[in-house]
Parts: sequence; C-alpha cells; structure tokens
Amino acid sequence: MPAVIPAIVAPSATDPLFTGTVERRDVGPSDVRIDIRWAGVCHSDIHTVQGDWGPQPYPLTVGHEIVGTVAEIGSDVTGFAVGDRVGVGCLVNSCGECANCAAGQEQYCENGAIGTYAATDVDGTVTQGGYSTSVVVTEKFVLRVPEAIPYEKAAPLLCAGITTYSPLRHWNAGPGKKVAVIGLGGLGHMAVKIAHAMGAEVTVLSRSEAKRDDALKLGADHYFATEDDETFRTLRASFDLIINSVSAAIDINAYLKLLALDGTLVNVGAPSEPMPVGAGTLISNRRSFAGSNIGGIAETQEMLDFCAEHDIAPEVEITSADDINEAWARVLASDVRYRFVIDIDTLR
Amino acid sequence: MPAVIPAIVAPSATDPLFTGTVERRDVGPSDVRIDIRWAGVCHSDIHTVQGDWGPQPYPLTVGHEIVGTVAEIGSDVTGFAVGDRVGVGCLVNSCGECANCAAGQEQYCENGAIGTYAATDVDGTVTQGGYSTSVVVTEKFVLRVPEAIPYEKAAPLLCAGITTYSPLRHWNAGPGKKVAVIGLGGLGHMAVKIAHAMGAEVTVLSRSEAKRDDALKLGADHYFATEDDETFRTLRASFDLIINSVSAAIDINAYLKLLALDGTLVNVGAPSEPMPVGAGTLISNRRSFAGSNIGGIAETQEMLDFCAEHDIAPEVEITSADDINEAWARVLASDVRYRFVIDIDTLR
Repeated sequence: MPAVIPAIVAPSATDPLFTGTVERRDVGPSDVRIDIRWAGVCHSDIHTVQGDWGPQPYPLTVGHEIVGTVAEIGSDVTGFAVGDRVGVGCLVNSCGECANCAAGQEQYCENGAIGTYAATDVDGTVTQGGYSTSVVVTEKFVLRVPEAIPYEKAAPLLCAGITTYSPLRHWNAGPGKKVAVIGLGGLGHMAVKIAHAMGAEVTVLSRSEAKRDDALKLGADHYFATEDDETFRTLRASFDLIINSVSAAIDINAYLKLLALDGTLVNVGAPSEPMPVGAGTLISNRRSFAGSNIGGIAETQEMLDFCAEHDIAPEVEITSADDINEAWARVLASDVRYRFVIDIDTLR
Repeated sequence: MPAVIPAIVAPSATDPLFTGTVERRDVGPSDVRIDIRWAGVCHSDIHTVQGDWGPQPYPLTVGHEIVGTVAEIGSDVTGFAVGDRVGVGCLVNSCGECANCAAGQEQYCENGAIGTYAATDVDGTVTQGGYSTSVVVTEKFVLRVPEAIPYEKAAPLLCAGITTYSPLRHWNAGPGKKVAVIGLGGLGHMAVKIAHAMGAEVTVLSRSEAKRDDALKLGADHYFATEDDETFRTLRASFDLIINSVSAAIDINAYLKLLALDGTLVNVGAPSEPMPVGAGTLISNRRSFAGSNIGGIAETQEMLDFCAEHDIAPEVEITSADDINEAWARVLASDVRYRFVIDIDTLR
C-alpha cells in the first residue's frame, strides 16, 4: 500500500503550485525512507514544470535537492540507520550494469539514469521529487550529509554543489589554475566557493557590477562586468577553465576567446537554442567547449565531505510551502542570493 | 641583395596562377637556404589566395609543405649541413619568448606565429611560400626529413601530417581507443594512417560509399557513409576521439552525438561560418568540442620520425608547375587521391 503524503504539486505547465499529495511506495529490501526536512529550489524545477525541456507528466512534484533523516530502512540496507542525516540529489536510480555505471558515472548511464522527478522509475511509476514530506529511495542513491554542514544549508549541495564540483575536479581546478565563473546565481556562487577552496585563482564574470562585493566575499579573487566590452579585451586568452553557469543564451564564442592554451569552457546549464561556435576560436589556442552533467554518486559523497572539510555551504534564503509560488517568481527574476530552501516542516 | 628566383605566383584572388618570380633574402647567420625539390598543394593555399580568410597581399606565392635540400647555411647554424634533406611547414618564425613558444607550442605563439606565406616577417617583408625553387628560413623552423620517407611523398607531412598527428597524440589515440575520422581527403587520409599506426581502432566517416576500399587499404577498421542516416543511429556514443578534417560546414551536433563518455571531437579545418552546438549534446556525455592547429616544431620532427619508423607516407599525385591551375581545380572538386605534390624541378 503506497503512502499518501503532503507535497507541493504542479498541476500543469502554467497553473500555480498548490499543496496537495503524492504517493510513495512501501520500503523495499534495498530502500531507505527519508523524512525530508529541507528541499532546495533549483531553476531546473521551474524549467521542467514550465515544459521548457519537453512535455511533462502532470500533476508533478519537483525538487532534487533533498535533505532529511532516515525514517525506515529495508531488510538488506547496510549503509544507513534510522536517524542518519542523509540527502538525495538529481538521480534515484540507474541500470548499474553499463560501462558508465560501472565507472561510477551513473549520471551518464547508457540506459538512462532515472531522475528524481518526472522520470519513469523501474516499477513503471513516475518519480516525484523532494517538495514533499518524505521519499523512498534505493540505498545506493542516498548520500550521507556530514554534521559539519548546517542542516538548512545542505540541500543545494545535492544539485548546485555537485554540478559545479564535478567539472572543477574533472578539469583539475587547483593551485596555479585560473578559473572563471560565468554568472553568480545558485550554481555560480557554489562554483566560486568550491574553486576557491580547491586553491584556484577565481574570477567572476557577471553582467553588471551589482554582485562585485558578494563575489569577493564568496572567495573570488577578481570580478569583471561583462556588459563592459573592455572585459573581453582585457581577459583574452587568460583562463585555464571557465564554468558557464548561465542557462540563457550568451555569446559563447566571446567567452571561448578568454581561454588560454588548452583551456576548457564547460557548460553546466543547457540553453534550449544551439550555441554558435567559431571553429577558428577553438583552433587558435587548442581550446575546448565541453559540457558536464551533475556528478556520480561516489563523487557526490566526495563533494559533501569536501564541503564539510572546507566549511563550505551555500548561501540560502529559507522559504515555506505557502510561499513557493513567490519564491519561483523571484528565481525567475534572479532575485535570490543565492538559493531558496523550502522548510519542509511547513508542509506538515 | 635579395635573390630573385622562379616561383608560381597568384596575381589576385581570381586570376589564374602563373610562373613568375619571388625574392629571397640573403642567408643571415641563423638562416638555412633550401633548394626546394617538392611542394605539397594544401587546400589552405587555395582558401588563402581566394581571399576566403580575408584580404591578401598580392602578388603572392603560397605553399607550406616544402621539402628539399640544404644549399647554404649561416655562420651560426649548427644543426644542418649543406646537402641535408629538410622540410619546412606552415611556420617560419615566432617570438620565441612567450609561454607557448617556451613550451614548444610555437603554433600558438601569443605574439602571433609567422606563417610560411602571406605573413609579415620580422624584417617587415611578406613571407612567400614553397611553390618556388628556394626558400630562406631561420634554422629553428627547419625540420629533418628522414631518408626512410620517399622524397616525393614527404612534403604533405609538413602540414597534413602534423595537423592530424598533433591532435591524435594530444588526445591519446592508441590501443583501446576508438577514433573516427570525418572526411577522407588530404588531411583525413593521413589521420587514418597515423591513428592506425598509433594502435587505435579507426573508423572513417565519409559522405558516400565511394572511398570504402581506399579507407580500408589506408588502415581503417570500419567505414560508414554519412549520407545514410542509419549511420548516426548505429554509431551513437561510440568514439573516444573524432578528427573532423572537413572544412565545409557540416552538422557538427550530429557528429558530437557519436562521442562516448568523455569523448572529444577535434576540428582541424576551419569552416568560415560558426557551427551550432547543442549544450545538451555536450552535457549528456561530458563531451568536448575542440580545435587544433598544426603542431609545434619539436612535435613536427617527432611526427616525421614516427612516420619514418612506421613506414607512413601520404598518397600523392605528382604535378608540374605548368599544370598547377588544373591541379587546384581538381582539389576544389575533391578529385585527388590524396594530395598533389608539385615537382619543383619543372619550375627550373
């Protein structure tokens, strides 16, 4: 008998969210049931509900930055106990058998990783996300959230944290490396904190001067406004790695020219329109334009431990279930510094 | 007193080439004068003369695949002696002082490497290429051409060879790696031979079935025609490395989808129009779209030695100074297998 529990529900692509219910399966032998305490608000939640990435199965509950405590475990679960502080990110399952899963890169599962919401689960049901009071997830996709990370701030690490940590690690951000971050939002501000903690020299590229003070406080060494054309001349061929956290269309070719020899620009956002790239721009400094999608489960755990060790947590604004539509409107207006987290107790 | 010597000359972007003359400087202390014996015909020669990459200084002599023998050396030259078999590629100088030059990547010189033709040399004159009976080049940019490489076939290695060798080496083509080559022309056929010699599993992606037999003879393990849409379904997420040797605009996004996890597609040609890239395509398998420009001088020597060791030489068709306009027309019609080489004795 599936449990029916409180949740914030999107009835369609255009109607406001409302407080309703979702069903959760019974806890199977390998499952963990988590009482959710905090749920981060990711721009992807809004893109998905609005149908920006294709039609969706409504009614839908989103949310893939989930933190709470273990409430129940299945008979085969060995890694978690009731009361543990845990998290769930963007994935709740994958085939576990393909080469990419075997390599710990479940996010690139060749048979399609199963997203935390709006995906078809192995039992044929549609997955429902973390804007709800509990969730049942197979043990392998549950993360430990260290006590050193403040409880109310941990949730955004499960998406914004790993989405930026993974490419910074993969492309070797660290001492002696010059890293730029395009956009200072939910993802961008985590990229700055993590790159700084890794020892890189960090530059923020933001549209206006508005976020200069914030950027420097977050750990950036330099800040440039991209509405000033001079920025693109000054910084030409400067960076080893650029993380583009902006999902809107930007002139990617102008940013590619900021890469030094063998530099890489990594898109972690996915604008819906193709981005025009000049082959000459890539050829002239052996530059690369790449993409990166969240991170694997083991790497997500590594990121959480890294954040605990380096005293890194997102900057958050707490919101309530009743205020979720206003929060979404403010996300769309880029009016949040830097991540909303829903206090899930307001759903209970 | 500069020497006036026979050369094939382009009088403008549109008029036919004719046999005229160019001037060569006297041999300075660090210079080597080379009696040119063979000169390869690169598509870039035609693009340049036609003004496809911007206005040019006419009259102009092109050619950056040059092989001949040392005729004279300057007083400070220690690495070459009269009679040595040598070559010159796409570069004849660079600043020698920037970080990229210091790293042996003269082709990415931060102050602008000096091209073998149509560039402004350190003495203020315009460089003139290898469709001529001799050339004077500073010692550092002269390569040794091993005797094991047939004399009349060596010239195309100086551009087509290094342009494909460098990205294959940089992105680790070798045993266990699946490499695809888009286009089987002057560059593509060298990519196939070199990747095969490096031990990679090589697939040729060519428009029609026409070059299947050739591709397999050159060392390809597999061959697919890209005019068959099924090819793109069959090969989805298959390759670790794709070398795109085609300078014309192609649907790059369709080819990017053929990359496996962490795969890279490298453009060695430079289409004049920007190439639309879907961020989602890059993100979904952590793919990279990169560019590569010829290679450094030390790496070019390494490539020549590699080709000698592995018995690799281009497939060439010998042409004469008198037939150069016809040869160019056939290059434009993709009617050469796979590189024209001018017998420079026909200019004497």
